[in-house]
Amino acid sequence: MATAGKPIECLAAIAWEAKKPLEVVVAPPQRGEVRVKIVATALCHTDAYTLDGLDPEGEGREWGGKACRATEDVPSATAPLPAQQQQQQQQRGLFPCILGHEAAGVVESVGEGVTSVKPGDHVIPCYQAYCGDCKFCRHPESNLCISGTSTFSEYTVVHEQSVALIRPDAPLDKVCLLGCGVSTGWGAVFNTAKVKPDTTVAVFGLGAVGLAVIEAAKRAGASRIIAVDINPSKFDAARKWGATDCVNPGDHSKPIQQVIVDMTEWGADYTFECIGNVQVMRAALEAAHRGWGQSVVIGVAAAGQEISTRPFQLVTGRQWKGTAFGGYKSRLQVPELVDDYMGGGTLLDDYITHRMPFGDINQAFDLLHSGQTLRTVLTFDA
Amino acid sequence: MATAGKPIECLAAIAWEAKKPLEVVVAPPQRGEVRVKIVATALCHTDAYTLDGLDPEGEGREWGGKACRATEDVPSATAPLPAQQQQQQQQRGLFPCILGHEAAGVVESVGEGVTSVKPGDHVIPCYQAYCGDCKFCRHPESNLCISGTSTFSEYTVVHEQSVALIRPDAPLDKVCLLGCGVSTGWGAVFNTAKVKPDTTVAVFGLGAVGLAVIEAAKRAGASRIIAVDINPSKFDAARKWGATDCVNPGDHSKPIQQVIVDMTEWGADYTFECIGNVQVMRAALEAAHRGWGQSVVIGVAAAGQEISTRPFQLVTGRQWKGTAFGGYKSRLQVPELVDDYMGGGTLLDDYITHRMPFGDINQAFDLLHSGQTLRTVLTFDA
Repeated sequence: MATAGKPIECLAAIAWEAKKPLEVVVAPPQRGEVRVKIVATALCHTDAYTLDGLDPEGEGREWGGKACRATEDVPSATAPLPAQQQQQQQQRGLFPCILGHEAAGVVESVGEGVTSVKPGDHVIPCYQAYCGDCKFCRHPESNLCISGTSTFSEYTVVHEQSVALIRPDAPLDKVCLLGCGVSTGWGAVFNTAKVKPDTTVAVFGLGAVGLAVIEAAKRAGASRIIAVDINPSKFDAARKWGATDCVNPGDHSKPIQQVIVDMTEWGADYTFECIGNVQVMRAALEAAHRGWGQSVVIGVAAAGQEISTRPFQLVTGRQWKGTAFGGYKSRLQVPELVDDYMGGGTLLDDYITHRMPFGDINQAFDLLHSGQTLRTVLTFDA
Repeated sequence: MATAGKPIECLAAIAWEAKKPLEVVVAPPQRGEVRVKIVATALCHTDAYTLDGLDPEGEGREWGGKACRATEDVPSATAPLPAQQQQQQQQRGLFPCILGHEAAGVVESVGEGVTSVKPGDHVIPCYQAYCGDCKFCRHPESNLCISGTSTFSEYTVVHEQSVALIRPDAPLDKVCLLGCGVSTGWGAVFNTAKVKPDTTVAVFGLGAVGLAVIEAAKRAGASRIIAVDINPSKFDAARKWGATDCVNPGDHSKPIQQVIVDMTEWGADYTFECIGNVQVMRAALEAAHRGWGQSVVIGVAAAGQEISTRPFQLVTGRQWKGTAFGGYKSRLQVPELVDDYMGGGTLLDDYITHRMPFGDINQAFDLLHSGQTLRTVLTFDA
């Protein structure tokens, strides 16, 4: 493309202290890097979280390398800031940074040595990289390779290992959702908990991730799916996605874990925390079935917060797990998820409740906070 | 036997407030119950714990039904106390009770309807019952059936479901150890963590349970076994049992989890807490490998104590589990463990460091507290 090898000036949403879109200069990709023209990007709650200064655990440690999670000890994958801005950033902590990690786009140019994608390829930038070679990529039970992305920008530079090449006929303004939330919920069910048929599942928090858990649990054959949220306006969607029971903790005087245990006799076979609230994480663990119940932490808590329980909960057979990007090995498996969507049978389209141009990003954040959206997709002008 | 159907007066160690052996009357077994003449019984730390008034979680809830753990919501399996004593017990909480749960003996008589054992059979009373029929017994991944035992008595009455029938040629004064600690350590490795070959294991606490974990980890093919204890006099035994590295947290200024992570680059594939200290449980979790490390809680904490960690530890792939009686389905699998011992190749004999007559039980408790014993076996006169 005509822009290859040159810096690109484009619109980006830079989180300084408050949120205001601003022009940035995106440097050409260096060796092993790929510059991607973002076509569509969605908002994830962890973006809002970081923007609010509640730097979630493990996030925002590296400037520009916004990663939804699991990026401790990871170098930034994005182009470096000018020295003056770097200094400001150190003074202010996290900010300024470019957030965004749930997106899809087209390769604009590639750096030296990049062989897996070429200009014009359709891609999903993955906040969880897959190099294929490190200890984590080679392990069958981990997807915790390293890198980060910044997709709230018309152009962004990422490591080659962070780019999943997808089929060209997939609509980018829909499959961008596979860059984080929906994939995370699906994978938590299929990869982390490995939900079996005829089991009971309890889902705490009915945003996009919670609904994705419900969708996957239904596909996995769970016979009872209990949806939990303090906002009963979420229940219609939960039922549509596959929930068999909806529970509002506010309707009960007992702790919610006791409500679930009473409903199920001994607890749910699998429970999922899709909020990022450490008290709910505890409730989810304690709502898991005595003897074999698994509880999966998906939500990202604020920095420094801790989960607690009596060890007896574990000794009597409950397991406490967590998941990052649903355990999917990103570059390998995101293309499979796109194929799955294109084959029909997923509810992916239905997670998109709002669409707007990228310039309205602040309005999108307001909507996110209102609790009335699942996913808002922002698109750049073609 | 001549005593069948009659009450038996015999010696028992009754924990009133302090510990003093006393004559008790053991009623004949009722329907579904078995009266066992205990031949040998060992001391477990949870007995000492209970005796010290630190009622561990889930223990001692039912008078007389001393269970090492996992007996919430379980009716007592032993003969009821006279009303007056029951009242005293309610006033004083846990006491009086008969502790002891690591024993072996001979069936003296059986109640109506008992078909699986007969007078003269050699048995190991199991604090974790196996009825074979409840939801937990039928589940392939749980052993949390219900019942309790009181073996610090020459005679004791237990449910039929709590009695494992073993081969008559096994030495009762040795295989009594399979009633709790050693089986628990072995099972934590084989059943709960399912340790794979060529992995790294870290074991916190080098009592009999910790050594049993080391023994099993070696048999499972672990290539590196890191033994951790603040008492370096335990290290010789740890090495004999199979430890490749011994670490005293007192020798390091860094937290022990950081020491283990540094030694192993990313943490141990499996970690086991064999103490009952909630701070060590946290350290063990945080010493587990990023991405897939499993940490198993074996030790029993004091009532009301809680474990804590940052949820990010789980989100980045660590799993927190626990085990009760090593996950063995007691009545089914304890006989297999006895067979394993009789076939040679286990270190069972080596866990027995002291032997004494039952009447010296108080001395045995003192030894236990000294940290100089692994297991003390108490025997009744033949």
